[in-house]
Amino acid sequence: MYDYIKKIKPLDRAVMDAAQRKWDSIAKPLGSLGELEEMIVRLCAIQNTLEPSADKKAVLVMCADNGVIDEGVTQSDSSVTAAVTENFTKGIGSVNTFARVCGADVFPVDIGVKADLNCSGIINRKIMHGTRNFAKEPAMTRSEAVRAVTVGIELVGAIAKKGYRIIATGEMGIGNTTTSSAVLCALTGMSPCAATGRGAGLSSEGLERKINVIQNALSMHRPDKNDIIDVLSKVGGLDICGMCGCFIGGAVYKTAVVIDGFISSVAALCAVRLAPECADYMFASHRSNEPAGRAALEAVGKHAYLDCGMCLGEGTGAVIAMKLFDFALAEFNETVRFESTGIEQYKPLK
Amino acid sequence: MYDYIKKIKPLDRAVMDAAQRKWDSIAKPLGSLGELEEMIVRLCAIQNTLEPSADKKAVLVMCADNGVIDEGVTQSDSSVTAAVTENFTKGIGSVNTFARVCGADVFPVDIGVKADLNCSGIINRKIMHGTRNFAKEPAMTRSEAVRAVTVGIELVGAIAKKGYRIIATGEMGIGNTTTSSAVLCALTGMSPCAATGRGAGLSSEGLERKINVIQNALSMHRPDKNDIIDVLSKVGGLDICGMCGCFIGGAVYKTAVVIDGFISSVAALCAVRLAPECADYMFASHRSNEPAGRAALEAVGKHAYLDCGMCLGEGTGAVIAMKLFDFALAEFNETVRFESTGIEQYKPLK
Repeated sequence: MYDYIKKIKPLDRAVMDAAQRKWDSIAKPLGSLGELEEMIVRLCAIQNTLEPSADKKAVLVMCADNGVIDEGVTQSDSSVTAAVTENFTKGIGSVNTFARVCGADVFPVDIGVKADLNCSGIINRKIMHGTRNFAKEPAMTRSEAVRAVTVGIELVGAIAKKGYRIIATGEMGIGNTTTSSAVLCALTGMSPCAATGRGAGLSSEGLERKINVIQNALSMHRPDKNDIIDVLSKVGGLDICGMCGCFIGGAVYKTAVVIDGFISSVAALCAVRLAPECADYMFASHRSNEPAGRAALEAVGKHAYLDCGMCLGEGTGAVIAMKLFDFALAEFNETVRFESTGIEQYKPLK
Repeated sequence: MYDYIKKIKPLDRAVMDAAQRKWDSIAKPLGSLGELEEMIVRLCAIQNTLEPSADKKAVLVMCADNGVIDEGVTQSDSSVTAAVTENFTKGIGSVNTFARVCGADVFPVDIGVKADLNCSGIINRKIMHGTRNFAKEPAMTRSEAVRAVTVGIELVGAIAKKGYRIIATGEMGIGNTTTSSAVLCALTGMSPCAATGRGAGLSSEGLERKINVIQNALSMHRPDKNDIIDVLSKVGGLDICGMCGCFIGGAVYKTAVVIDGFISSVAALCAVRLAPECADYMFASHRSNEPAGRAALEAVGKHAYLDCGMCLGEGTGAVIAMKLFDFALAEFNETVRFESTGIEQYKPLK
């Protein structure tokens, strides 16, 4: 993992400037596509071209179980992780549906599902059969966490090698809003009360329990916010580790990676804390309806394009955002320039 | 116009309830698609079916000039309205590019361009050669305003008859952020200072002038906020009138109509004030970067799906939002139900 991080370089400012000049030559009011312009400016620098592409799109869905669900912090149990993960391989999950609309290919990854999955089409990178219950002991060892992060980095490398230019991050794992809230609290000092939501439909009593479990675990393990692997191994999850690796991998393999919702944002935050330059290669998609979704994105320093109260997970919000690249790229690559219309170029504001 | 308004009916609650039950049967956490669920619930009621469609999409672009630009409130002149409108007919405008990505057909409408356009592919519904300068006299007569609104209503009727199920509203007209700010102030009591922005790139000096022009026009004409046609005819524009008609037409012809940015939101507000039930048939797309864009949408009572600083106009934001319907509809119509998976249905929150 650390060797990969050493390879990361910030984006080339000269390419970004040239890309902005190309935007300014297109026949429309200056800056009028707002964040979609910034999106493409960075994509140009990521791909080192003024004719970037997002034609080949992938969704990497990290699937894993979390031992902490023994504490009664979820409505469902780990059998749902296995069932939904198998659905991804059959093409019948929500993320598969969204990916078809977007024109993206779905790659489900078993990075720590508790059950042994009997299905083809899964990428088997199982680190362990679910994490340990962090209410009792650290969720995993440092070495397990580092291996899970490395899985994410290397999968992005493999997918980039196949020609994919943009990767949406997704996850499936009962209990993973609990781990995400715990990691967010550990990294930012946010209180578990503010950082914890109902996930996939928890009762008020369950929510109370979830907050207490997180609070107690943070008191017991005292994760060091300056040591991301310490935080991830003590109160994180294998999916979060894997997604964190995806964001690092984006920077290593010069590939755009799209943040999904709350869990993905927490993983992005871990990546940015491990290697700040990762932020250049990541794009926020939507503002999750999970209460701490906005806080997590703000901690990453990103603003989301979409704000429609989604909290489905699986990468669904990130997949929608990948379609925004198609709109912005069509404008960037196809729309007429001022020089070829009868229209005088708009003047920049003084 | 008034005869059309009498035909409008609110949506059938029973269909909406059935649509929400269908959402709740789909294998995903309850309510986890947020506003995309509400979007489809209303689409079901608009189309009176539990298998609604947004396959056939249109963009209606209302093009018109505004006499008030004689006051120096814009960077460009009316030749740009004509040039960009002609570009729409050639398929080379920004909205054409976006529409190709979305799979929508563009219908540019000359509802009041100052120049006589010499191009095929334009829908000619010219009410007049641009409005009068509202700094000196009312922009149009009541009769002209009513005719322009009626153009919008009847075009939606014609487009719906061709099988289009969803219509994005767009506009092109130098000076139309000035008219939109003036109408918004007249309808809501907002101050011109707060409601006025730089449009397609106005200097600070120009912005100052624009605010003064609006302030003076409101003082001189004293538009009656309870008489929408009074407001539209005194300080509005033909494009705003036409788009207002589109929103009314959506309700008359049971067709979903998508609000674009600031100008479109102001038109939607006029429609809602003329016929409150119109709101059921309209969908907000994006939060414009124009300062009053958010205020206009709030006055309509709508929340936008996208928030990415766009302010291009032409319908570009609304076209992106039409793609969101494809994602939501695919999930609604294609994704597996709990009954056909091994997964127990999530329980509703108590």
